[in-house]
Amino acid sequence: MDIPSIAQARKHLVAAHGKPFDLSKRDTGDRTLFEDKSVAETSLKKDAAVINELKDMLYAEGKRSILVVLQGMDTSGKSGTIKSVFAETTPLGMEVKAFKAPSSNELARDYLWRVHNAVPKRGHVGIFDRSHYEDVLVVKVKGYASAEDIERRYDQINAFEKHLTENGVTIVKCMLHLGYEEQGIRLSERLTEQHKLWKFNPADLEDRRRWDEFMGAYQTAVERCSTRHAPWYIIPSDSRTRRNAMIARLVRGALEDMDLEWPNPGLNPADYDIG
Amino acid sequence: MDIPSIAQARKHLVAAHGKPFDLSKRDTGDRTLFEDKSVAETSLKKDAAVINELKDMLYAEGKRSILVVLQGMDTSGKSGTIKSVFAETTPLGMEVKAFKAPSSNELARDYLWRVHNAVPKRGHVGIFDRSHYEDVLVVKVKGYASAEDIERRYDQINAFEKHLTENGVTIVKCMLHLGYEEQGIRLSERLTEQHKLWKFNPADLEDRRRWDEFMGAYQTAVERCSTRHAPWYIIPSDSRTRRNAMIARLVRGALEDMDLEWPNPGLNPADYDIG
Repeated sequence: MDIPSIAQARKHLVAAHGKPFDLSKRDTGDRTLFEDKSVAETSLKKDAAVINELKDMLYAEGKRSILVVLQGMDTSGKSGTIKSVFAETTPLGMEVKAFKAPSSNELARDYLWRVHNAVPKRGHVGIFDRSHYEDVLVVKVKGYASAEDIERRYDQINAFEKHLTENGVTIVKCMLHLGYEEQGIRLSERLTEQHKLWKFNPADLEDRRRWDEFMGAYQTAVERCSTRHAPWYIIPSDSRTRRNAMIARLVRGALEDMDLEWPNPGLNPADYDIG
Repeated sequence: MDIPSIAQARKHLVAAHGKPFDLSKRDTGDRTLFEDKSVAETSLKKDAAVINELKDMLYAEGKRSILVVLQGMDTSGKSGTIKSVFAETTPLGMEVKAFKAPSSNELARDYLWRVHNAVPKRGHVGIFDRSHYEDVLVVKVKGYASAEDIERRYDQINAFEKHLTENGVTIVKCMLHLGYEEQGIRLSERLTEQHKLWKFNPADLEDRRRWDEFMGAYQTAVERCSTRHAPWYIIPSDSRTRRNAMIARLVRGALEDMDLEWPNPGLNPADYDIG
């Protein structure tokens, strides 16, 4: 099997704007794009190298930016994705923002205030490990905001993302779609492997018990916020290697679509005497 | 020749606190530590891999941080150092801050305000591409502050850095010491190589014409601010590969000195039913 084209990957993974979306029909173990694990590994490696090259050109241009939004349940692999997809990428011009529970200073503003503040600079690649979508996911499931407030947020988020894309930010939104069983296996690993124990948070088990409610919140968020300017991609995430390879295809595609070139400031070398 | 030990690298490169320092005696082409370029390449590669591992443990611990300060004239290789020393390091838990001319918002505060604001979070590795030292370097040479103000800044900087180190930040300060001739070669490269042209800034030539004044400012800054808690290391930078290898030794040494371990939150797996 060949490496799927970026167009094929997008078509297979997107939650298409304006079409019915059913999260329960998306198989977390789907291997359509990368049946063969070794093909996924090869694809990931190639894409990671190209991503690094294009990122350098984006940095040199300094006019536009990329924002990769990673959402998913605990253990779905947000950190692992960052490590793999950007394995070849040096930290220069990269911004990773991990959103935690908001501070009192952040709660003193509207929920998008801290998000806007974390938007990557021109020339940078920004990665959101969790994002403003938490405000229609965990906030909804746990009732931290009223139903009326949450209902208004989908359109607010769409307007915010439209604003960003119209101002030079390409947004790539990936839901790391993990199976309930696979999460159980990964949580057990965290409890038994010494170098993973620090990641285990007993509170995660509470979210696990409300799995169906979370999936319902994801269903609505993706359905309402998969727009033409910032579509959602649903990434089958039971296989780590395939998940990384699929997301790398999407990130590379976003960079390629920018038609980046090394900037030419129009200088004439003869005008300058280095001395 | 073997790879020099971290202790050897430190001893050779440091501007020792309390001892006379003479920048003009430091050879920008010095190859004492790495005579053989291939040994430098091997050392860099090994160190970059270890830096990535230790950085992950630092992130997991989440209690302390590392701040790498890179200072040097244009083309001395600040960006190149970041790319090479952290070539194996994924962007998770990394913060690169490039200091440019201060904004009006920054100028409305004291010169350390924006620097303090950019100090890496606990668990992170921060890299300053230029730093608060600009406030006793370019600011001094170009007279942007009074001599009295600048004179006070050395002690202020030492106090600030002492405060940071006492609060869990390990500081590694590297002056990328480049020769005047080598800078000429590199500026010419920027003018003639298409993918480097964007980096050429005609204003850099003005700094070049004031080379001796800049070296005088570096001499004083290093002499006054190489402290026990945050020593300056002078990195011979005419050779890119050796420069990277030397800085990698220092960064690895700083991480190793932290005696990092995977955190053990003291959980008993039997207490948790994953379900």
